[in-house]
Amino acid sequence: MGRLAELFDPETVAVVGATDREGAVGRAIVENLQDEFAGEIVPINPSRDEVLGLECYSDAKSAPPIDLAVVVVPPGVVIDSVRELAETGTEHVVVITAGFAETGGEGAERERRLREIAAEYDLDVVGPNSLGVMSTPNGMNATFGPESALEGSISFMSQSGAFITAVLDWANDQGIGFQDVVSLGNKTVVDETDFVREWGDDPDTDVIIGYLEDIDDGQAFLETAREVTGDTPIVLVKSGRTDAGAQAASSHTGAIAGSERAYEAGLEQAGVLRAQSVQELFDYARALAGLPEPESDGVAVVTNAGGPGVLTTDAVGDSTLEMADFADETIDELAEAMPDEANVYNPIDAIGDADVERFGEALEIALADPNVGSAVVVAAPTAVLSYDDLAETVIKKLETHDTPVVTCLMGGERARQAEETLRESGIPNYFDPSRAVSGLDALARYRDIRERTVDEPETFDVDRERAREILQRAARRDDNRLGVESMDLLEAYGVPTPDGEIVDDPDRAREVAESIEGDVVMKIVSPDITHKSDIGGVKVGVSDDDVYDAYEDVVSRARNYQPDATIIGVQIQEMLDLDAGTETIVGMNRDPQFGPLLLFGLGGIFVEILEDTSVRVAPIGEDEVRDMIDEIRAAPLLRGARGREPADVDAVVETVQRLSQLVTDFPSILELDVNPLVAGPDGAQAIDLRLTVDTDELDTETDTE
Amino acid sequence: MGRLAELFDPETVAVVGATDREGAVGRAIVENLQDEFAGEIVPINPSRDEVLGLECYSDAKSAPPIDLAVVVVPPGVVIDSVRELAETGTEHVVVITAGFAETGGEGAERERRLREIAAEYDLDVVGPNSLGVMSTPNGMNATFGPESALEGSISFMSQSGAFITAVLDWANDQGIGFQDVVSLGNKTVVDETDFVREWGDDPDTDVIIGYLEDIDDGQAFLETAREVTGDTPIVLVKSGRTDAGAQAASSHTGAIAGSERAYEAGLEQAGVLRAQSVQELFDYARALAGLPEPESDGVAVVTNAGGPGVLTTDAVGDSTLEMADFADETIDELAEAMPDEANVYNPIDAIGDADVERFGEALEIALADPNVGSAVVVAAPTAVLSYDDLAETVIKKLETHDTPVVTCLMGGERARQAEETLRESGIPNYFDPSRAVSGLDALARYRDIRERTVDEPETFDVDRERAREILQRAARRDDNRLGVESMDLLEAYGVPTPDGEIVDDPDRAREVAESIEGDVVMKIVSPDITHKSDIGGVKVGVSDDDVYDAYEDVVSRARNYQPDATIIGVQIQEMLDLDAGTETIVGMNRDPQFGPLLLFGLGGIFVEILEDTSVRVAPIGEDEVRDMIDEIRAAPLLRGARGREPADVDAVVETVQRLSQLVTDFPSILELDVNPLVAGPDGAQAIDLRLTVDTDELDTETDTE
Repeated sequence: MGRLAELFDPETVAVVGATDREGAVGRAIVENLQDEFAGEIVPINPSRDEVLGLECYSDAKSAPPIDLAVVVVPPGVVIDSVRELAETGTEHVVVITAGFAETGGEGAERERRLREIAAEYDLDVVGPNSLGVMSTPNGMNATFGPESALEGSISFMSQSGAFITAVLDWANDQGIGFQDVVSLGNKTVVDETDFVREWGDDPDTDVIIGYLEDIDDGQAFLETAREVTGDTPIVLVKSGRTDAGAQAASSHTGAIAGSERAYEAGLEQAGVLRAQSVQELFDYARALAGLPEPESDGVAVVTNAGGPGVLTTDAVGDSTLEMADFADETIDELAEAMPDEANVYNPIDAIGDADVERFGEALEIALADPNVGSAVVVAAPTAVLSYDDLAETVIKKLETHDTPVVTCLMGGERARQAEETLRESGIPNYFDPSRAVSGLDALARYRDIRERTVDEPETFDVDRERAREILQRAARRDDNRLGVESMDLLEAYGVPTPDGEIVDDPDRAREVAESIEGDVVMKIVSPDITHKSDIGGVKVGVSDDDVYDAYEDVVSRARNYQPDATIIGVQIQEMLDLDAGTETIVGMNRDPQFGPLLLFGLGGIFVEILEDTSVRVAPIGEDEVRDMIDEIRAAPLLRGARGREPADVDAVVETVQRLSQLVTDFPSILELDVNPLVAGPDGAQAIDLRLTVDTDELDTETDTE
Repeated sequence: MGRLAELFDPETVAVVGATDREGAVGRAIVENLQDEFAGEIVPINPSRDEVLGLECYSDAKSAPPIDLAVVVVPPGVVIDSVRELAETGTEHVVVITAGFAETGGEGAERERRLREIAAEYDLDVVGPNSLGVMSTPNGMNATFGPESALEGSISFMSQSGAFITAVLDWANDQGIGFQDVVSLGNKTVVDETDFVREWGDDPDTDVIIGYLEDIDDGQAFLETAREVTGDTPIVLVKSGRTDAGAQAASSHTGAIAGSERAYEAGLEQAGVLRAQSVQELFDYARALAGLPEPESDGVAVVTNAGGPGVLTTDAVGDSTLEMADFADETIDELAEAMPDEANVYNPIDAIGDADVERFGEALEIALADPNVGSAVVVAAPTAVLSYDDLAETVIKKLETHDTPVVTCLMGGERARQAEETLRESGIPNYFDPSRAVSGLDALARYRDIRERTVDEPETFDVDRERAREILQRAARRDDNRLGVESMDLLEAYGVPTPDGEIVDDPDRAREVAESIEGDVVMKIVSPDITHKSDIGGVKVGVSDDDVYDAYEDVVSRARNYQPDATIIGVQIQEMLDLDAGTETIVGMNRDPQFGPLLLFGLGGIFVEILEDTSVRVAPIGEDEVRDMIDEIRAAPLLRGARGREPADVDAVVETVQRLSQLVTDFPSILELDVNPLVAGPDGAQAIDLRLTVDTDELDTETDTE
């Protein structure tokens, strides 16, 4: 376990700014600690001798050794208090006080200094602007919230303190318990990645859940979460999903939001299950905390009611699961055990007069079926069925089966006691069949995440030095937008491009054309001219004899169009049979949180009108690139649909990997577009290129490597 | 109000098969009626003199006049009982007894006889295999379920009796009330359309909700629901949405399920709001039953908590609503009224120390904004905020505003009393912000449904007689699959086709070619040859001089390929410049419930790979056809995206309308595909046609018209 484990398991907790003034935050925290905390509580306040019956110390220096300090002093004295704590050996500090970066100006400066002190003394600081932290095994509620958590195996972090108070009030009502709870506040020092790492190592945490509005360092989070989800599921509500929401989140936390597509890709790659609502968060968490993993995707539905059975079947159809196809023996056994009117195929309808015995028998037979990986027990109230007895029966059947089962005992008051009984055995009950199935679905999706092997990005043998020189050349020209004149950058990274070169006189143009088989394509090369075709700056199918004149023509048109344009030359390029290939696009832009975000799509309308693209956070390995290609709706076209010759998908896969390496090697490349990358039957070729570089960043790269 | 109104408001209710035997259904119904029913209860059972203290009659003839009879006798005597009731003047019968069509064989025969008797005596029969009916104003619970409904303005029908018992148990717990409740059973006589019509006329029903597994007569339902939704919203869970669910539904009710796409289109055209889960059904229904209509789509969010505010904003982003853009005065007023740290832009964050007064003030200012059509009050628990007081404040503010407001008082026990207070004023409270917003969204969507004008399908001047002859000609050939040889069917309905004709000798071929400007396309016409191009049966760009030889060649290739093929001739057709147009597809197949289902899409990959199509139940008017075209993702291509010349969309619209008229006029056309319909810059032309006709149906059409 990491050092953060001590944050949740201190022997002594100091409350710096403790008071017994009614309504004060410094009182609420002491009271919450006094409720249940097994360790020692140390109030610190220079103007008091005693707080709520506890001896109060004037400062950290005079107090006993402090494992965890909760700071609630006014913003102006937080820095001094934290320094004093650090000097007396405290390693864990929660800053409750608000008035830091979220208020701008002076607050931002205070936050900077807090960060410095934390670094200087190697302090774990939670907050500022935090509600506090809780840990249920030792009864520690070091928050100023109105509720304490029940004990359980879910650890919970939130970027909104209010979200914690809202959820706890509700969770206590539902009997849902927690291991650790932390209000992240401004995340100045310790952030979501640190808690994911800590809880990933904590044997008492079965599920990590969180409410986040942003992620500080997307790449670090991705790496850590990817590792942790091998053992412990993570479910997150990441808000600010929509444009309106992102704007609201940004005004709430002052964070610069990354793009939703980057979060979507990054969280998926990290193995995080994303919930869209509070309800979904807990529907998933309850299933993940209490149930074993399904061995297969087949779901058995056992019910006493046709309609709810159909609804459950629909929910299975909507999920990644499927209705289990019962073995013949299962059907025979069910037919034997059930009345004639019952449906012995899945969903099993034990019909309205089913009592607990019949229900239990049907469940028992279903669980024994080799195609059943999980089951839902769905019941409607009848005169002959006691939900309480049914709950006991389900629990009993599960003693001999390691299959996840959820229940949907539909009703209100009638289901209350049964729900509690089931909960004590870790079995979640849901009112709505669709939620019951989504709980099971989360289990299966987590199983797939746990089992997946993420292939390491391949490191190709590339000419990094040459690529650096090409980028520097651009920097020297003081030009941050590069185009086709930098195609050799692609060559340096082993991405095939058509034969040809950029020339700056007509004789050389002819020489190059003669060295290329067949006719050529000629394009003006100028950073100042974007729409080359429109001004007659592109000629297609030029024969060797016509190249000289064509050169003069292309250049003079460019000069006429824009006399002050920088003209680098004319590109003479091998003419490809575009009809024999499929145009694809590979792009990259840098997300503020996740870094290089790669995009893949088919050319033309697929990107422009249908927005049929897939994205991943780079670097990525081969399997992920293949998934990326499969994900686009038009993927079958690449595989040879409609009588086309299939494209060389392997070549596309390799090109995307090489570009992933390029943008990972050079953070100075801010944006990159290979458009089109033509995927033919025997290879893929990059025809055009645009990129934007950060020339300052480029200098740094050059200096440090 | 229709005659069915009497079903829910009888003076006397007979229970045929009443008994006081413990556990019997005939006892449960009498007991349920005794609970609250304001009218007279008449037990009928030849073997008893008294049932539960009530005088029992031996048969309907000896009993007092009966307005509604509930029949629970064994299946074998149901028919006789119903006949006797009819003969004594009873008009409304609920058959509880099961063992009819759902069991097949003898049961199906019984069901047929029940239908006959109902027709003979003009009886309203609910069921068989029904749980019964309820109406809360007169306290009538004529079901054998364990729960009575609370009074309210929601009328509820269900094809599953169990669904009713499950929902009522839960709804009673939630304080949700109902007007009428009916368990539809097998829907032998009275069905969903009848109840929609009845409740549409009922001033006490504010919302109609239902659980359906199928709809008996889709076209009748569509027409009735379309009318009713002008005044009364309808929300349905239609299960069997997924393949697995449809199969389960079919084995549950024995109904032949129509396609999910037909239901989706039909219910949308009918103005029905479709819920995907039980929870959504009531989230919508509660909002629709209690709140006024929003005048605009702008939503104001008022909260004391940043995080939940962001979540609510995300939910608005996901919905058809939008965050209201506050007027300057609103922002000024909020800035005046709120503390400095508050966010006065939408979502309004009154911050954590907001008390009820500040909350109320913020809401008041927001509601006065002209851009605010609805509002969500979102609160997290704090020490300074009483949910109970907040509920009172919200209710008070709404006394002077006719704006729909929902609340999201997050929490469990803490929110209980407030929730009840709000409910009494018709304001739904939701724990999850996403559900609160989806309630408001249902209001806005229903407003749009109420306001929409459905244009009457246009009746074009067509040559129906000629179309009939063409279809009959096919019938005489005993051929139910027609192709290009029936293109004149399209001409008869005014759908443009290229110039040309089908000829059966080479000289005539030449004559026709000469009469057509430019080269021609030639195609073998044979019902037995599907892939004409593959066998060399198609020639493109044939000049007049080459037509004779080409004719001989095409025919001999066809004969060689398949010596016994019926060869109708060779089609000589004007050659169109396909590049100048966009290929579209218009198709139709007949759904067992909804009838003719029209499909529109762009040709090729859009249909084959991307499945980018839209469907509607025919007949449809111009507006609906335009919607249908706009709905496909590739629609911008028709409008001239990517530098193309825009297609003549008006011509496509007219063609689809004409085809809608054709398939409506001739139910004998089972399937039809116009593929491609080429949409050029100046008109649309049908190039190829396939259709399947029901030759028996065709005879009927011919006889009767």
